Order: sequence, then structure tokens, then C-alpha cells
Amino acid sequence: MSAPTSWTLADGRELLFFDLPGHTPAPVPDRRPLPPRDPEPSELRFDRTTGQWVIIAAQRQDRTYKPPAEACPLCPGPTGLTSEVPATDYDVVVFENRFPSLAGEGNGVAGPPEADGFVAAPGVGRCEVICFSADHTGSFADLPTAHARLVVQAWRHRTADLLARPGIEQVFCFENRGEEIGVTLAHPHGQIYGYPYLTPRTAAMLAQARDHRIAHGTNLFADLLAAELADGARIVAQTEMFTAFVPFAARWPVEVHLYPNRLVHNLTELTDAELDDFAAIYRDLLGRFDRLYDAPLPYMAALHQYRDDGEQGDGYFHVELMSIKRSATKLKYLAASESAMDAFIADVTPESVAARLRAL
Amino acid sequence: MSAPTSWTLADGRELLFFDLPGHTPAPVPDRRPLPPRDPEPSELRFDRTTGQWVIIAAQRQDRTYKPPAEACPLCPGPTGLTSEVPATDYDVVVFENRFPSLAGEGNGVAGPPEADGFVAAPGVGRCEVICFSADHTGSFADLPTAHARLVVQAWRHRTADLLARPGIEQVFCFENRGEEIGVTLAHPHGQIYGYPYLTPRTAAMLAQARDHRIAHGTNLFADLLAAELADGARIVAQTEMFTAFVPFAARWPVEVHLYPNRLVHNLTELTDAELDDFAAIYRDLLGRFDRLYDAPLPYMAALHQYRDDGEQGDGYFHVELMSIKRSATKLKYLAASESAMDAFIADVTPESVAARLRAL
Repeated sequence: MSAPTSWTLADGRELLFFDLPGHTPAPVPDRRPLPPRDPEPSELRFDRTTGQWVIIAAQRQDRTYKPPAEACPLCPGPTGLTSEVPATDYDVVVFENRFPSLAGEGNGVAGPPEADGFVAAPGVGRCEVICFSADHTGSFADLPTAHARLVVQAWRHRTADLLARPGIEQVFCFENRGEEIGVTLAHPHGQIYGYPYLTPRTAAMLAQARDHRIAHGTNLFADLLAAELADGARIVAQTEMFTAFVPFAARWPVEVHLYPNRLVHNLTELTDAELDDFAAIYRDLLGRFDRLYDAPLPYMAALHQYRDDGEQGDGYFHVELMSIKRSATKLKYLAASESAMDAFIADVTPESVAARLRAL
Repeated sequence: MSAPTSWTLADGRELLFFDLPGHTPAPVPDRRPLPPRDPEPSELRFDRTTGQWVIIAAQRQDRTYKPPAEACPLCPGPTGLTSEVPATDYDVVVFENRFPSLAGEGNGVAGPPEADGFVAAPGVGRCEVICFSADHTGSFADLPTAHARLVVQAWRHRTADLLARPGIEQVFCFENRGEEIGVTLAHPHGQIYGYPYLTPRTAAMLAQARDHRIAHGTNLFADLLAAELADGARIVAQTEMFTAFVPFAARWPVEVHLYPNRLVHNLTELTDAELDDFAAIYRDLLGRFDRLYDAPLPYMAALHQYRDDGEQGDGYFHVELMSIKRSATKLKYLAASESAMDAFIADVTPESVAARLRAL
């Protein structure tokens, strides 16, 4: 696929157009009187009780909050005065978040600090928005095949680009969908974070995988995938190159993990054929989600990606899809057991959820 | 204080009355035709990708969900036909949850399983409900001093009782308050869990404390408390025996930690004078919470308690109070960065929150 077209927004942020074959972007100047960006919008603080970094991004309190559809900042803005995307139309665009939790370049923070006491560090990194489509009312599951594939291509481009930048340890492509989980912009979009540290959950998973490799000589995730395939009770969907299942110890009322059938670390290692297959099964899964309760399902989609190097080499690219909707009318809330103790309590058996999703 | 009065509910569950001086409970027979309890209501499953146990409690889907006030199962039920508390009145009661996530006796699961593959274990343990008051419309912050102290006494009693039971590794007293975090019963109440394993967050905190002790020879939490006192910018309230502060790396829009000024492991090690002081400052903090936005604040209150033994000996009893309310009208949702990657992003500085709470 061809390289994206780059554009610059009024406050200096980068905007990238990814186009379907035969389409050419036609951006116009962004004429909005945007305030200059804060060069240091956040800081990292180290929590000694958990050994984890926390991002303190206090300037985001005033970020755009549930604007009416006619003021949507993600719809095309042909006048250059109304939107984050100054153009008459687009297929897929990616741009830096106007209210970033992480921004700028610098050193990442690999692991705990050497100093004692209260330790903070600049919140360097990258926060991007990816608009899946110019259509305000659609969803990822509704995208035509070639369009879904274009989103995957954009994710892959951003992964390669951000992983190459100094200070970025981890690239996280994700989608939050639904007001029930706090989404403040209805327009179909996702986000891409370049974290300056290995996130706590990723670090925990890599530690498990390292221990597994030392004990068994094999890859933890590959072994889990093989075990799920051998068991079969929690398989949701399969293609030639991908497998989707509800994990044995699912935490969420609806939870599906999607693995490529061979070990890769991130999207950049997949072949074109695998990327085609990935776009198709990913979209298929999200379609099942929406049919589960005959209504758009609020969900989170998390692409777990790793570097192909020593510390992260035990990682296995996969997607974790999660929803808090435990019935057509009820939500699962993360209250004190989950939020304060990380002790998850699931209300449904993984096998029953897999059977329902498989049948849809 | 005197020992509680024990009563038995129609399905065999235990109910305990804790009374203010001069009060005597007057229970009546529980005449509800309750179905027999499931002796194995849940199972634990081990998640190899994180090294954590997950509770699968599938029978809880039908638990009581936002009943009208006149059908509240926590209000006194003098007929023995309408309530979990068959009595004309009560001060504080504790009873086993009718829809428990953990129940029964057996072996706990200390650490990861030895076996490979998919490993499950019985969900033994204990889930209790504690009603703070017979008044349906009150809150903990509204309780008279002696009544708040009685709740603390009940927590202490349950902690001692449950810690002595085989298979229970950790006793967690907590309160979820507010529909915004999924509370389905408005009546002022908390819960008490006896987990058959060390919860993941507690295990992580104890690992940090152990490393700190090995490196510095001192207690991590005591050093953090001393550092917060020396800094002062995040102190919210102090008494002779307790200190409350917003932690340096707070994760939540409103987060306050309450520590006794001397190291104890759990409520059973506090003196009567300390328990008096604890009840007073705890209630004071919850009152500040409700004054923050001039409305009842949705919150989670988590009592971090430890055994006084080798593995848990580095623990330091404290309370973590958290709210997801980031302004008078907006909630902080745990979306993909937090839920999928444990990477927390705070929208406010801990110092500004501490200053506001201190001034209230």
C-alpha cells in the first residue's frame, strides 16, 4: 500500500491520511485559532507501593466532552474551521491528540527509578487518534472489507513509526467504544499510545512468559493457544491464520482473545495475507459482539504488541476484546474487589459465553 | 464491647447483631422460603498470562438488582418474611451474602498451581454483608460517633474470626457506595470478603515492601508515611494517631490513604483509643468526600489488612479511599489504558485534590 499523506494542523500537530486505492486526499489549511501546545503536558510518577508508573495529565480535564453531532471534531471539516480533519472527505486519518496524556520526545523510563523518595519524570510519548471512517454513525464492524484492511494498515504504519522513536517502549493501538465506558466522542475512532515505559500488565505478562520459557523451553502464549485449540470448548471463530477464543480464566462478562496461529510480536511481522485475514476475523468478532444483545455492545479492543528483542521477545501479538455488559440491561462494574485488590469476579462461565458468540 | 448475638437465616446462613450499649437485639424467625444454598457456588481459575487467580461465580447473575425502597432486603423485617434481617430494628448486622462469590471451607490456593495446563480450584472463602445502620437513607458519614465506632468494632470482629478460619488468606472489609460504581442496593452497607488467596494487588504491594526491606532495612509503608508527613503538600487530615493523605502517585480523581501513625497489620492490633480515633477520622474523610461536590460522592473504601506473619509481615494496615468522580458532572472511566494495560492516567494533580479536601 502507498505511504500516507502528511498534513500539519494549526497548532503544529501531524495529520496522516491513509487512502483506499484510487482515492487522493484533498486537505485544506487548518484555520482554527488553536492555542499553542503545552510542551510538557504530563508527568510520570512512580508508585512505590505497587512498583508502577502513573501518568498525571492534569490539563486534560477540559478535553472535548460529548459534543453534539454537528460539532463533531472527527467529521471532515471542508472549511478548515470546524474539525480536526480539514478536508472534504477522508478514508482513514491519524493525528496527534489535542489533549495528550503523553507527548514530546525524550528518554523513556525503563523499570523502577534508581533514586529513593518521590520520583517523577516527564510524560514523554505519543497519543494519537485514528478515525476509522468519515461516517459519523458507523462502527468498525460496519466497515467494508477493504476499509477495515486500511485501518489495519494504518495501525501497522503507526506501530512501525512509533517503535522507531527514541523513548517509546510500547505501542498500544486500542478502541474504546460506547458511552458506557466513558467514550466522549461518538464518531468511530480508536487511539494509539506510545508509552515511555512498559505498561504494568504487559510487564506482568512478559514476566510470566519468561518464567514459562525457563521452565518449559516453549512460548507461554503459543502453548495456551494450542491448549485452547485442543480443548475447543471456548473457541469462538477460526480462520486459516487466526484463532479467537474466550480465555479459560476470563475476567470480563464478554472477553475474546484473537491470536495469529504463528508467533509474531506485532503487526509489522504479519504478511499481507495474514493482515487480510486479521482484518476479516477482527471485524467478524465485532459483528458478533453487536449481535449478542441486538444492540451496539460497549467494548474495549486492545492490541497487545511487543518488540522483537530480548526483554519483550517472549511476547506474542494478540488482541484482547472486552465488554462490561453482562446482560442486555446490566453492566459489570469494577468495584472494590477488582479496583482495589485486582481480584476479578466473573459473572458468567467462559464456556457459555463462547458458545453464544460461536452461534451468532 | 460485648460479643455479637448470633442468629440463623432460613437457608442456614449466619447473622450477627452488633449492638450499641443498652440495646438488645430482638430477632424473629426467618420464615422466607429460601432455596437451599449451592455448596460450591464458584470456582477459581488460574490465568497463566498474568499469574493471577480469577473467581468465576456464574450463579450471581440473578442477584438482587436495585429493588424499590419498600422491598429493601437490608431494612429490618419484623415479620420475618421480607428482609435479610428478621428483626424490628438493629444497630449493625453482619450476615453471609445470599449470592456469594466465595463460600464454604477448604484449602486456600497459596500462589500459582504446580500443575500445567488449565487449573481450577473450588471457590472457598467467605462473603459477608455488613449493614451500617437500620436507616435506609443514611450513609457512613452521617453515623453518630458511637455508631461509626460500632461498625469498626464489627469489622475488627469479622477480621479476627475470618483470619482464624482454614483456607482464608486475606480478609477484606470494603464499601462500594453509589450507583455510579454499580451499587445495586442503596441501603448503607459494606461487604467483607475472606479470599482463599492473596489478591494480586496485595501480593504486588507485599513484593515491593519485601524488596524495600531488603534494600533499606525499613518498612516501605512507614517510610512513605514519613515522607508524606515531611512533604506536607498532600496531607488531608491528621489526628494524634492517624494521618490521611492523597498519595504522590494517585491513580483516581479522588484518592485518599489513611494510615495509623504506628505500624500494625490489621484492625485487631489497634488499641481501643486507636479504634476510637480511626472511626472518627474515617467518618471525617467521608464527610469531606460528600462536601467536595455538594452531593453524595460515589466511592470505594478498601481496608488493606495483613496477617502478622512472614509472608504478610511487611504489610501496614491502611485504608484506600477512591472515587471515579473527576468533577461535579463527569466520571473517570477505566477504559483501555487502565483496563487492558494497567496504565493509569490521572486527570488532576494529587496536590490540588489534597488542598481542596483539606479546606473542606
